[in-house]
Amino acid sequence: MIDINLPAVLAEVEAVFAQYQQALVRNDIAVLDMLFWNSPHTLRYGAGENLYGYEAIREFRKGRPAVNLEREITATSITSFGQDFAVTNVEFKRAGSDRVGRQSQTWVRMPEGWRVVSAHVSLMN
Amino acid sequence: MIDINLPAVLAEVEAVFAQYQQALVRNDIAVLDMLFWNSPHTLRYGAGENLYGYEAIREFRKGRPAVNLEREITATSITSFGQDFAVTNVEFKRAGSDRVGRQSQTWVRMPEGWRVVSAHVSLMN
Repeated sequence: MIDINLPAVLAEVEAVFAQYQQALVRNDIAVLDMLFWNSPHTLRYGAGENLYGYEAIREFRKGRPAVNLEREITATSITSFGQDFAVTNVEFKRAGSDRVGRQSQTWVRMPEGWRVVSAHVSLMN
Repeated sequence: MIDINLPAVLAEVEAVFAQYQQALVRNDIAVLDMLFWNSPHTLRYGAGENLYGYEAIREFRKGRPAVNLEREITATSITSFGQDFAVTNVEFKRAGSDRVGRQSQTWVRMPEGWRVVSAHVSLMN
């Protein structure tokens, strides 16, 4: 039986997720890069691109204009499984847009710390 | 250290993922329902809806017209972590549409079997 939302694990995931969100709106690329798993298996589906592997994700971040990254989180769901796995999901809105954004991330506790192994960001139709 | 893509685990996940994909195009709702984790924590962001909890996902499936579910998978990425955790990601196209679809699922081995705990489906902008 897998323990769901053990308080200590959930607290760790909430902390690293908050760190990620803060880095995102500040466009702190070093932190964003650090929090993605450095592996060719890592994957990120973005609103307008499909990126396979840590290097492709890193290149994309470097080339992205650092504007309009501010956003309001309108719903949050975080669930942990056992000691080493978690999913984080949020709905968000960007200033000046009525479209509903969704960000899903799967996290794994690696030897180097919690890392995103798979991410999917989209705007709802 | 977490074992990535242990062959026996990967084979299990590939099998249950194939079962899910087949049920999807056939609109075999019983199988689709079975393969989602029966929990209020389960979440599915769809192309046009955000569903929180197993019951909301189940209601949505019941109400969805069973047409145009056929699709061509154009890219597949499956990665397992340890014995009990995996992510599956595919790109797809529907007949009559040029838009690129993406489906991301996070799977956990529950006592009852492998189950989707979080899913995100979208069309790329």
